Amino acid sequence: MILNTYLNRRFGKPIWGCGRVRVKGVDMKILRIDVGEETVTAEAVPETLKLIGGRAFTSGWIYDFVDPECDPLGPYNHLVIAPGLLAGTPSSSVHRLSVGAKSPLTGGIKESNSGGIVAYKMARMGIKAVVIAGAPPEGKWSVLYIGPDGGRFDAAGDILGKGTEAAAQSLHHVYGDDAALMVIGPAGENRFSSAAILNSDREGFAARVCGRGGMGAVMAAKGVKAIVIDDTGTGPVSIADNDGFKKGAKQYIECLRETPQTSEIYTKFGTAAMTDVANELGGLPTLNFKKGRFDGAEKINGRTLYRTIVERGGNPSHACMPGCVICSSNIYVDASGEAIVRSLEYETLVLFGPNCGIDDLDELARINWMCNDIGVDTIELGVAVGIAMDAGIIPFGDADGVKGLLDEVRKATTMGRVLGQGAAVAGKVFNVKRIPVVKGQAMAAYEPRAIKGHGVTFATTTMGADHTAGFTIREGLDSHKKDGQVEASGRMQVNGMLYDMLGVCLFAHPAVRNRHDTLTRMVNGRWGTDITTAGLRKIAVAAMTTERAFNRKAGLGPSSDRLPEIFYREENPSSGTVFDIAPDALDALEYE
Amino acid sequence: MILNTYLNRRFGKPIWGCGRVRVKGVDMKILRIDVGEETVTAEAVPETLKLIGGRAFTSGWIYDFVDPECDPLGPYNHLVIAPGLLAGTPSSSVHRLSVGAKSPLTGGIKESNSGGIVAYKMARMGIKAVVIAGAPPEGKWSVLYIGPDGGRFDAAGDILGKGTEAAAQSLHHVYGDDAALMVIGPAGENRFSSAAILNSDREGFAARVCGRGGMGAVMAAKGVKAIVIDDTGTGPVSIADNDGFKKGAKQYIECLRETPQTSEIYTKFGTAAMTDVANELGGLPTLNFKKGRFDGAEKINGRTLYRTIVERGGNPSHACMPGCVICSSNIYVDASGEAIVRSLEYETLVLFGPNCGIDDLDELARINWMCNDIGVDTIELGVAVGIAMDAGIIPFGDADGVKGLLDEVRKATTMGRVLGQGAAVAGKVFNVKRIPVVKGQAMAAYEPRAIKGHGVTFATTTMGADHTAGFTIREGLDSHKKDGQVEASGRMQVNGMLYDMLGVCLFAHPAVRNRHDTLTRMVNGRWGTDITTAGLRKIAVAAMTTERAFNRKAGLGPSSDRLPEIFYREENPSSGTVFDIAPDALDALEYE
Repeated sequence: MILNTYLNRRFGKPIWGCGRVRVKGVDMKILRIDVGEETVTAEAVPETLKLIGGRAFTSGWIYDFVDPECDPLGPYNHLVIAPGLLAGTPSSSVHRLSVGAKSPLTGGIKESNSGGIVAYKMARMGIKAVVIAGAPPEGKWSVLYIGPDGGRFDAAGDILGKGTEAAAQSLHHVYGDDAALMVIGPAGENRFSSAAILNSDREGFAARVCGRGGMGAVMAAKGVKAIVIDDTGTGPVSIADNDGFKKGAKQYIECLRETPQTSEIYTKFGTAAMTDVANELGGLPTLNFKKGRFDGAEKINGRTLYRTIVERGGNPSHACMPGCVICSSNIYVDASGEAIVRSLEYETLVLFGPNCGIDDLDELARINWMCNDIGVDTIELGVAVGIAMDAGIIPFGDADGVKGLLDEVRKATTMGRVLGQGAAVAGKVFNVKRIPVVKGQAMAAYEPRAIKGHGVTFATTTMGADHTAGFTIREGLDSHKKDGQVEASGRMQVNGMLYDMLGVCLFAHPAVRNRHDTLTRMVNGRWGTDITTAGLRKIAVAAMTTERAFNRKAGLGPSSDRLPEIFYREENPSSGTVFDIAPDALDALEYE
Repeated sequence: MILNTYLNRRFGKPIWGCGRVRVKGVDMKILRIDVGEETVTAEAVPETLKLIGGRAFTSGWIYDFVDPECDPLGPYNHLVIAPGLLAGTPSSSVHRLSVGAKSPLTGGIKESNSGGIVAYKMARMGIKAVVIAGAPPEGKWSVLYIGPDGGRFDAAGDILGKGTEAAAQSLHHVYGDDAALMVIGPAGENRFSSAAILNSDREGFAARVCGRGGMGAVMAAKGVKAIVIDDTGTGPVSIADNDGFKKGAKQYIECLRETPQTSEIYTKFGTAAMTDVANELGGLPTLNFKKGRFDGAEKINGRTLYRTIVERGGNPSHACMPGCVICSSNIYVDASGEAIVRSLEYETLVLFGPNCGIDDLDELARINWMCNDIGVDTIELGVAVGIAMDAGIIPFGDADGVKGLLDEVRKATTMGRVLGQGAAVAGKVFNVKRIPVVKGQAMAAYEPRAIKGHGVTFATTTMGADHTAGFTIREGLDSHKKDGQVEASGRMQVNGMLYDMLGVCLFAHPAVRNRHDTLTRMVNGRWGTDITTAGLRKIAVAAMTTERAFNRKAGLGPSSDRLPEIFYREENPSSGTVFDIAPDALDALEYE
C-alpha cells in the first residue's frame, strides 16, 4: 500500500494490525461484511490508519485488497464506505461520506461522495469504515442493518423493485424514522453502470446522492438493496482535544461567515450560482456539448431558481447535513408549494437543461426527482440523454420525451438499458460523433474547450470526467487559455482529495483556500494528533498516487488520461476555442 | 518502425523512400488515398519493404503512421489493404487479403483477412498496398475505383443502404462482371463495430469476409461504400526466378496433396470438420458458452453438412480463390438446389448453432446469408445473439427470433444497434454474467476452459479473441490441461503471422507445418530474394512485436491480455475444467 508506505515512514511502525485507534476510550472499528457468508466482523483500526479517512481510506483499501483486474460486479470487488476524518464533529459541512470500489463504468478506481447524515451517524458509532465483499447466493437480496450491537442481514422483501423514495418510506416504517439509509433504485438492481446510491438527508429523505461511477451497481452486485444505519443510543463523537478542536472550528466557521461565496452566494443560489459564470465563458454544455452558451440560461440560473423557490414558499437554503452554515442545498417546490425535489443542483440543471435544450425549471425538477427515484447519476443520464437527442431519438428540448426515456430506464427496456449503462455506451450504440466522456464516464457540466482547467481535470483525474476532483474555474486563470491550467488542476486535485479525506464539502474551499490550518486544527483536535497541514497534504498526494497506481494495473494507462479527440479537432463556437493542451502536457501533471 | 529496425539491420539501408521494389521491370506501388482531398497517389515501394506483405505490412504501416490514441472512426485512422507476399502467384491457397486499421471494436491494432480474388487482382496490378486516410466531407459516400490507369472517386449513388448482395450486383452492372469488389453493408454504413468487409470470390459473389474487428466501420468512416478493383489488361504477376518458384510451389502442392487434412478432410467437410473434435472435448460453445457439448451436434457437423450439400446438388468443395487445391469452402443449397449461402463455415455454424441452441442447417445457412448481406461478422453477432438469448430477449433455439434480431440490425433499431456494436456492448446492456469477449471482441467457437490453448490465444493475441491468430487445437496437447499451452500458443501465433504475411491460408498448416521451406522457396522465387525460413519467421516476430507495441500505446496493457474472470471461476460442466492459466503465465508468453 503506497499510503501505508508513506505513513510507515511518518509513524515508524509496521502497518497493519498494530495498535488501535482509540479516542477517549472509544475504539474505532472497521466492519467487514461478507455477503456470501453473511458475516459481519468488527475489527480494530490500526494506529497507522488513524488519519486515513474518507476517499483516502476507500482508495487505500481498494489498492491493498481489490485485484485491479477483477470484474467490478464479481465477488472480488469491495464496496468500501468511509466517513471523512471530521465526520460527526460539531462543525459545518464536514460530514461527507465516501463510497469507493472498482468502477463498472470506468474500470478503474472510484470514489463518489455525498452529504447527508450517514457519515455523521457512522462516526458517532465509531465506525471508521464498512467494507462489503463477496457475492451473494444467486438471486438473494438483503437489507444490511448496522446497529449499536453489530450488523445483520435482513431480507429485502417487498422493497425490491421499488424506487428509492418508496423503498426509503418502507424502510423507515420498519427501522424507525431516525435510522439513516443508503438505498439503490431499479437502476442499481439492474446493475446499470450509472446506478447511484441515495443517502438520507437531515430530514430522512434519501436524497443525497453518491452518483458517479456506478457505485449503486456494485452495491447491487453484493445483493444489498439498502443499508440501514441505526445509531440509537450513541452520543457525540469523542474528541481527543476539545479545546484544540473548538479553536480550529471557530476559526473555520469565521472563514465561512466572512466569505461572500459561502455566506451568501451559495446559500442563496446554491450550485446554480455557476450557471451565469459558465454561460458567460461559453462553457455551459449545450445541445450535447455542441456549444457553450444557451439562450434560455436566464430561465434556469441561480437567480431564477432562488426567486422561484422563495416565491413558492420552498427552501432555497437547505442544509443537507447537521451544522452546515453554507446551506447550498434547496427544496424545490411546485406552484402549489409541494416539494418536487431535494435539491435541484447545477450539474443536473445544466446537463438536462442546456445540454438537452430544456429551459423549464419545473420540468428539470421533475426529471431530477425521477433520476433520484430510479437511482441514477443525473450527470451520466443527462449526458446520455443529450446523446440520444443528438442521434435524433427525441428532439432537443423535449422534456416529456426525457421523462419517457427515464421511464424506460426504470423499466429496463432495451432503450432504457442503453441509457442506463451511461453516456459511453449510448454514444457507441447511437453512433454520435461527440461523446463527452473520459474513461467511460460522462463529463460534468463544464465545457472543456472553454473551461480548460476542468478539461485537464476531466482528462487526468483517476476518477473519469468528474468536476469535484479538480475544480479550477474559480482559480483566477483565463479559462479560454491553456496557460497554467495543468498546474491549477494538479493543485486543485490535491485540494479535492484533501477535502474528500476529511469529509469537508468542496463548497468550503472559497473560504478556506488559504486557511487549511483551520481544518488541520480540527483534525488534530478530533484525533489527538499533531500533524501539520503539509503533512495532511502529503497523505492526500500519497492517496492520489495510490489511485493512479491502481488504475495503471487495471489497464487505464496514460492513453486513458485524454479528452475525446473531437474536443481537439472541433471548435466550441461559443468560445472560439478547441482544447489544445497536448497529451505530453497532460502526462506531466503533478500533484502538488 | 520496429519492423523497419529489424529490416534495417538485415538490409543495411535506410528505411523509407530508398530504392524501389521492381520485379522484371514491373514496379510495385502503394496507393495512398485521401478521402478528404479525394486524391489517389501512387508511390514506389522502398526496397526495404519488399518482404513485408499482408498483415506484416498493415500492422507495420499502422504502427508507423497511425496515432495509437486516435479515434478509430476519425480522420487519423488509416484503412490499410495489403495482399500477402505470394498473392497472385500460380500456387494454391496463397491469395489472402489483409485489411488492417485501429479497431473500433478493440481499440487496438487489427488485421482481418479473407480469401477471394481481391488480393490476387491487386497483386497482378502491382499493388503492394492501398491505404485510405482522412475523413470525407460530411455525409459524402463514394465508390472507390482502382483500375489500370489509377484510381478515382465515383458517387455511391443508389447502392447506399443496400445489402452487400444487391450492392455487388449493381456494381457489377456498372463496372463489369470481372471487377473484384470490397463492399460494406448497412451495418458498416451505421458504423457498427461488428461491421465486416465482403470481398469477391472467384465467381464474383461478395462472399469472402474480412469479418473481425469492425473493419467495415472504418471503411464507412472513410465514406467508402465499395472498392472496385479492375485489373483489365494486366497479366500474371512477374516472378523473379521462375524455376525457383516452381520448385517451391511443386513441393508445397505435393505436401497439400499428401496430407489427409488438406486433400480430403477439409475438402469434403470444410471447416465444419472441427465440430466433432470440439464437441468431443467439451469445447463446443453451447448456450452462450455455458457448456461445451451440444446434443444436436450431429445435425450440424461436417458429415451432415457434406451429405446434405451433396444430396441436394450443391458444391461441398468450392475453391474461394484461384488455384486452390484444398477447396474447403462450399456452396450450401436448399432442398430445391438453390444456393442459400457461400459458404457455411464452422465458426458461424457453432456460434449461431450450439451457442444459440439451434441445430438446423438450413436455418443456419439463412442466418449466415443475412449476416453477409447486412455485412456483419458472424462470430461477433453469433456471440451477441447468444448473450441476448441468455438475457431472455428471445429463447435459445429460436431461429426465427434470430432472423428477427438480424432484421433489427439491418434496420438499426435500438436493439439492432446494441447487437451490431458487438458482444461486449450487448453483454453490458443486457447485464449477463458470461460475456465471452477479450479486448472487447467476441470469442471464436472454441470454449476456452476446455480448449486451453485457444484460451491462451484469445487472451494474449493483439487481435482480441481470434482463433486464426494462434490455432493450437491440433498441436497434440491435452486440451483440458494447461501444460504446454502457452508455448503452443506462442508458436502458433508466429505461424499465424507468417501465413498472414504471405497470404497463405491457415488451412495449409497441417500440410506444411514442418515444410515452411516450400513457402520460403516460393517467396524467394517471386521476389528474387534469398531469405531463409528463419529470416521470414524473424520478420513475423518483429511484426507481432510491432502490434503489441501499438496496443500498449493505445492503452491495451497486460490487463487486457486476459480471459473474463468468470472463465476462471465457473466450471465448464462438459469438460469439468476452469481456465486455470495464471495471468503471470500469460504475460510470459513468448513469440518463438
